[in-house]
Amino acid sequence: MVTRELLDPHSIVVVGASEDVYKPGGRTLENLLVHKYGGKLYAVNPKADTVQGVKSYHTVEELPQVECAILAIAAKYCPHAVEVLAREKGTRGFIILSAGFHEENQEGAKLEKEIVDTINSVGGSLIGPNCIGMMNSNYTGVFIHPIPTFARDGIDFITGSGATAVFILELGITQGLRFNSVFSVGNSAQLGVEDILEYFDESFDPATSSRVKLLYVESIQNPAKLLKHARSLVQKGCHIAAVKAGGSEAGSRAASSHTGAMASSDVAVDALFRKAGIVRCRGRQELLTVAGIFCQKPLKGKRVAIVTHAGGPAVMLTDALSNGGMEVPPISGPKAKELLEKLYPGSSVANPIDFLATGTAQQLGDILDACELDFDVDCMAVIFGSPGLFPVYDVYELLGQKMKSCSKPIYPILPSVVNVAGEIAQFVKAGNIYFPEEVVLGDALCLVNRTAPPQPEHPEMPSVDRAAIRRVVDGAKDGYLAPGDVQQLLDAAGIPRAGEAVVKSAEEAVKAAEKLGYPLVMKVVGPVHKSDVGGVVLGVKTPEKVREEFDRMIKIPETTAILLQPMLSGVELFVGAKRDEKFGHMVLCGMGGIFIEVLKDVQAGLAPIGIPEAEGMIGRLRSKKILDGVRGQEPVPTRAFAEVVSRVSALVDAAPEIFEMDLNPLLGNSKGVTAVDARIRIAR
Amino acid sequence: MVTRELLDPHSIVVVGASEDVYKPGGRTLENLLVHKYGGKLYAVNPKADTVQGVKSYHTVEELPQVECAILAIAAKYCPHAVEVLAREKGTRGFIILSAGFHEENQEGAKLEKEIVDTINSVGGSLIGPNCIGMMNSNYTGVFIHPIPTFARDGIDFITGSGATAVFILELGITQGLRFNSVFSVGNSAQLGVEDILEYFDESFDPATSSRVKLLYVESIQNPAKLLKHARSLVQKGCHIAAVKAGGSEAGSRAASSHTGAMASSDVAVDALFRKAGIVRCRGRQELLTVAGIFCQKPLKGKRVAIVTHAGGPAVMLTDALSNGGMEVPPISGPKAKELLEKLYPGSSVANPIDFLATGTAQQLGDILDACELDFDVDCMAVIFGSPGLFPVYDVYELLGQKMKSCSKPIYPILPSVVNVAGEIAQFVKAGNIYFPEEVVLGDALCLVNRTAPPQPEHPEMPSVDRAAIRRVVDGAKDGYLAPGDVQQLLDAAGIPRAGEAVVKSAEEAVKAAEKLGYPLVMKVVGPVHKSDVGGVVLGVKTPEKVREEFDRMIKIPETTAILLQPMLSGVELFVGAKRDEKFGHMVLCGMGGIFIEVLKDVQAGLAPIGIPEAEGMIGRLRSKKILDGVRGQEPVPTRAFAEVVSRVSALVDAAPEIFEMDLNPLLGNSKGVTAVDARIRIAR
Repeated sequence: MVTRELLDPHSIVVVGASEDVYKPGGRTLENLLVHKYGGKLYAVNPKADTVQGVKSYHTVEELPQVECAILAIAAKYCPHAVEVLAREKGTRGFIILSAGFHEENQEGAKLEKEIVDTINSVGGSLIGPNCIGMMNSNYTGVFIHPIPTFARDGIDFITGSGATAVFILELGITQGLRFNSVFSVGNSAQLGVEDILEYFDESFDPATSSRVKLLYVESIQNPAKLLKHARSLVQKGCHIAAVKAGGSEAGSRAASSHTGAMASSDVAVDALFRKAGIVRCRGRQELLTVAGIFCQKPLKGKRVAIVTHAGGPAVMLTDALSNGGMEVPPISGPKAKELLEKLYPGSSVANPIDFLATGTAQQLGDILDACELDFDVDCMAVIFGSPGLFPVYDVYELLGQKMKSCSKPIYPILPSVVNVAGEIAQFVKAGNIYFPEEVVLGDALCLVNRTAPPQPEHPEMPSVDRAAIRRVVDGAKDGYLAPGDVQQLLDAAGIPRAGEAVVKSAEEAVKAAEKLGYPLVMKVVGPVHKSDVGGVVLGVKTPEKVREEFDRMIKIPETTAILLQPMLSGVELFVGAKRDEKFGHMVLCGMGGIFIEVLKDVQAGLAPIGIPEAEGMIGRLRSKKILDGVRGQEPVPTRAFAEVVSRVSALVDAAPEIFEMDLNPLLGNSKGVTAVDARIRIAR
Repeated sequence: MVTRELLDPHSIVVVGASEDVYKPGGRTLENLLVHKYGGKLYAVNPKADTVQGVKSYHTVEELPQVECAILAIAAKYCPHAVEVLAREKGTRGFIILSAGFHEENQEGAKLEKEIVDTINSVGGSLIGPNCIGMMNSNYTGVFIHPIPTFARDGIDFITGSGATAVFILELGITQGLRFNSVFSVGNSAQLGVEDILEYFDESFDPATSSRVKLLYVESIQNPAKLLKHARSLVQKGCHIAAVKAGGSEAGSRAASSHTGAMASSDVAVDALFRKAGIVRCRGRQELLTVAGIFCQKPLKGKRVAIVTHAGGPAVMLTDALSNGGMEVPPISGPKAKELLEKLYPGSSVANPIDFLATGTAQQLGDILDACELDFDVDCMAVIFGSPGLFPVYDVYELLGQKMKSCSKPIYPILPSVVNVAGEIAQFVKAGNIYFPEEVVLGDALCLVNRTAPPQPEHPEMPSVDRAAIRRVVDGAKDGYLAPGDVQQLLDAAGIPRAGEAVVKSAEEAVKAAEKLGYPLVMKVVGPVHKSDVGGVVLGVKTPEKVREEFDRMIKIPETTAILLQPMLSGVELFVGAKRDEKFGHMVLCGMGGIFIEVLKDVQAGLAPIGIPEAEGMIGRLRSKKILDGVRGQEPVPTRAFAEVVSRVSALVDAAPEIFEMDLNPLLGNSKGVTAVDARIRIAR
C-alpha cells in the first residue's frame, strides 16, 4: 500500500499553501523549498497565483497531474480535494496534516472513512490525517522544524505522535543522529506503524537499506503484523527500538490471585517486543541513546573497555555496566604493559584505562588500537571532556577516525557540553554520534545487551492430538470445562497429570482409592474456590478415612462429585494461558503460591512458544534457583517444565476457543512436572 | 577547621601564577581577575614582577601578609611554601591544586603529611591537594571552567573528584542551576567531604543558608560524621542528594548463604544514606535532576498534575510517575469544568491537562491557577515545547512568573532544545531551572518521593540488661559463643527464644524432653552446618525416639552435646547483625530460607535502630505481604518482628565486640516471634 508516489514523488502539491510560514501550509511549502525538493512543486490557494514563488492554483480542479498531495486545509474540505486528486489528477501519495477527523468526533470519522475509501479505490497511499507529515531524502513533507540530516544509513523513524516526534528529532539531532526517513502516521487512517514496518520489511535490500528503526507508539492496532515484520527485519540484521507509552494504567490494575489478571496489556507488549527482538525503551532519551548505540559498529559481546581521562565518570559507568549485566573485565599481561609504557606515569590500563587529565590524542589512539587488536573486549566507551584549559579538537578528530576504522564499536562520551561545545559541534558535523552522560549510556548498553534475538516465527512445537482436542472443544459449551473434559484435553496435549478418579458414592471412592494408591488427596468438584469451603483434604491414608471424608464433603454446597488423586510431592509450579482479543494467546509460567501471588514472579510469552523460548521464560524467573534445587530440595528439570509451557501453547493453538486456563499447581520434582489441578474456560 | 580566611579571604596569593592561562596557575589567576575578586591579589612567580597585571613576588618569603594561598607548584616545593606562609605570612586558608602527593606514592604521602601538620599547627584550613580548588560568591579559586552563577540560595556542592565536578557544573549550568559554593576536596588531606558538611551544619542559619547540598564521593572516610551532619542538615530543612560511586565491585561479590556476606559496603552506603535522609543518585544527570527538584518550592505530597500541549510526553511521564509510586490523579468536578471552558475545544482537564498544540500563555496561566487553588494536587509538571512554528517567549515568561508566585512547585519540562533554544536560554537567564526530558524528571521525582525523612540520632531503644550482656561478653573468647552464652545474651537482650536444653547423655535428654514437652527438635552442638551432617531431627515424639536419636547423633564428628527444643510452627524469619570497621554495626532482617538465599530479599539498617525504623525495614521487604498472612497462613505481627530487630541493635550496642550474629530461623506466628537458632561471633 506504500506507493512510489508517496516515497519519491516527481511532483508535489501543497493544498492550503500560504505565504505565512507560521501556518502549517506555509511552513510545509517553505520546508520543501529550503530543503530543495527536486521535482515539480505546485500550490493550491484560492486567493493567490503564486505562493512563496511557487505557481498556485485557485482550486484543485485546475491542477495539472500531480503524484503527491499534502493537504493543509480544514477537514471538511479534504474529501472533495482527495476525490479530485485521486480520480482526475493521478495522485497516488497523500499526506493529510489537518486535524478534525476521527480523533475529534463522529462526523470527522465519516470524513476520514470517505477519504480512505477514495484513496484505496485508486491504490494510493495515505499518511495521516492529524499528523506532522513525512520526510526522507527525497522531500520534506512536514510543517515542523527541525529537519534532520538525511543519510542512507540513518534512522527510519515511525511515530504515532507528531509532537513527540519533534522532541525526539530535536534531542537526536543534538547528539548527531542522522535519519533516513520519518513517518508521522497520525490517525493511521490507512497506513499505520505496522504498515510502514511491513513496507520496510518487504522492500529490504541488504546492500542499501538502513538498519536502524525507531518506533514511538501509544497503541498497537495489529500486534501480529507488528510482530511479523519487526521479527523479520531483526532477522535480516536490523535493530529496532521502540517506546510503547501508556502502559501504566493497565499495569496498575489491582492484581488478583487469578493468573489471567497479570496478562495485562503492558505485559503483552513486553512479550511481543521480546518475541520480536525489539528493544523496549521508556522515554525519548533512552530511545535515542539506544539508537546511538545501534548506529555504531555491531556490538558482539558484553565486555567493555572503559577509556577515560577522568576517574569519576569511569567509576559511575563501571557501576552501571556491571550492575546491569555487562562486564568491565580486568586487562593485564604483556600487551597491557606495553601500552602502559606509552602513557604518562600514573596512568592505569587495568580497565578502566585511565590516561589522566593530561592524556593526548596520540595516547588515545594507542589505547584504542590495543583495545581493537590486543585486548579481549567487545567495545570501547571513551570518556573525554575538558576542564576548559585547552581545546580538544585533535582528540575528537582522532576519536572520529577510530570510530570509522575500528571493527569494534566505540561509544564516545563527551561530557563537556559547555567547555568544548565547539569541538562537540564539529565532531557531530563530521557525522559522528556522541553520548553526553555515562550512566545513561551504560544503562542503554545493558538494555541492548539484555534484549535477546527474536524467536522463530514457526518454532518446532510438541505434537498434540489435535483431533482429540477438537472433539472435546467442539462438544463443549462456553464456561469452565468439566473435570473429565479437562483431563482429556491435558492427555491430548501430552501434559502429564496426576492419576485421578471422580466419584459420586463412597463405595466408588474406596474402590478408586485402592487403585490410585494411598496417601490420597480428596477435592470437591463444583465449587470454584475449593480450599475456602473446606473442600480439599490432604494425606488420606485409609479406606475408613476415604469414606468419612466423602460423606462430609459431598454435602458441601455446589458439590457434584469428589475427586481423588494420589498425593504427590514436589515444588508448586504453575502454567497458565489467557487470550487477548488483539494479541492472541499469552502463556504464563512461574512458581506457584506466594511466588505468583505476592512476589508476582511470573513470565509471559506470546503463543506459539517452542521449548527453547519456554526455557528462556523459566530462566528469567527470579525464583529460578529454587528450581535448580536449594536447601536440600530436589531440582526440577527445566526441560520438563518448559515442555508443559510449550504444550499449553500447542493446546491453545489447536483450541483457540480456550479463553483462559490454569495448571495450578503443577508439582515439580526430579522426575518431572505433573499437573495436579487444572481449570480451562472456553469462550467463543 | 574551616577558617574564615578560606571562605572569605581579604587577600589571596596564587603561588605558581603564570601568564599562560592554559596552565592551572595562569587560569586560576585569570578566573580570580575575570570574576572580580574584591580583595588584595598577589602572585608568586620566580621570573616575573607582574603576572596578568598582578604584582608578582619571586619567592613566598617576599610576600606581605596574605590570608589565603592557592598553590599551583610542583608537590616537592609545597611544604616549604606552606611553612613560610603559615608561619610568617599569617596565611590560614590553603588550596593546593598540585598533584603528586599521597595518591602517587609514599614520598608524596610524606610531603602531604608535612603540609597538614604545618597547617594544623597554626589552625589553618586546607583544601586539596590534587583538586580543582574551591569557589563561592567571594572568590573563584579554581583553575577550571565553567564558573557557575552564584546565588545565596544556590547549591552547595562538595566533590571528591575534580573532573567529575567540571562535568556536573557544565550539565547543571545548562539546566539553569545556580550555586552557592563548590568544594573540590581532592585528597582530603585535611578537610574531607564530611568536614565541609560539618561546617555547613554548624554554621547553618535558617535565614540565610542555602538549603540544597550535592555530594559526589567515591569513598566515605568517616561514615558516622557524614551521617551526623547530613541528618542534622536535613532535619534543619536542607535537601541532600549524593552520588556514591564505586559500589559495584563489592555489590557483585558472590553472595553466600551467610547473611553477613550481604552486608557489602554498597548496602552499608544505602543504609547510611537512608538513615540520613540523603537521596542517593547513580549519575550526574540524576543528581542534577534531583537538584533541580530541590531548588523549586517544597514538594509536599505525591499527587502530580501534568500540564501539556503535547500528548506523547505526558503519557510517558504518567507511566514513569505511576510506575514509580507517585500519582497522576483524575481531576473533575465543577472547577474542572470551569477551567475546561477557558481552553480551546478538544482540550482535556482530566489530568494530564492537555491544552493542545495551539494552547496560549493565558490558558497556561488559568490552568496553573486552577492547580494552585482548586485542584487537589501537590505539584505541576508543565510540558511545553514547540514544533518550530512560532516563538514561545510569552509562555515561558508566564511559566517563570508562576514558578515564583505559586506555593506548589512547578517543574517545567522544555523539550524543544533546538526549536526554541533562544527562549530556553532566556528562561534560564531569568533565573529559572528547566528539565529537558519528562521520563528523567519523572524518575527523579519518584526517587525524591521514595526517600524518607532521616531517622532520629537517638532513637528510643528497648531496654536490655547491659550488665548481664557485659558479663557474658567480657568472659568470652573471640570466636563463636557456646549455646549457653548465646542463650544468656538473648535473654539479657529480651529476645524471645525457644526453651531448650543442652544434654550430654541419653538420660539427661529424656529428662529434658519431658520438661520441654513433645514434639521436639534435636540438634547437634559443635558442627557449624548441622543439617548437612544429619545433625537435625524434627518431630521427635517419644522418649524411645529421644534415646535412639541421641545415641546416633552424639557420634557425629565434632559433636560435643545435643540440643533439645520444643518444635514450634510459624513462618521462618531471620535477623542478623554484622560489624563493618567503618560503618559500625549493620542490622539485617528478612524472611528466612529461600527469601534470603535465592531472592536476596533482605533489608539493612545502621545501628542504632529503634522500633519505628525497624518497622520501616520490614515494610520494605518484597515479601512483606506474606507476613501479613496469605493463603490461610497466620499473620506475623510486624511490631514483634521489629522489636527483635531493635533488640539486636541494642545488644550489639552493649556488646560492640559482637562481630556478627544470626537469629536464623526465628519463627513468627500470630503470637509473636521466637528465636529458634542463633549464632554469635565475637571478634575484638
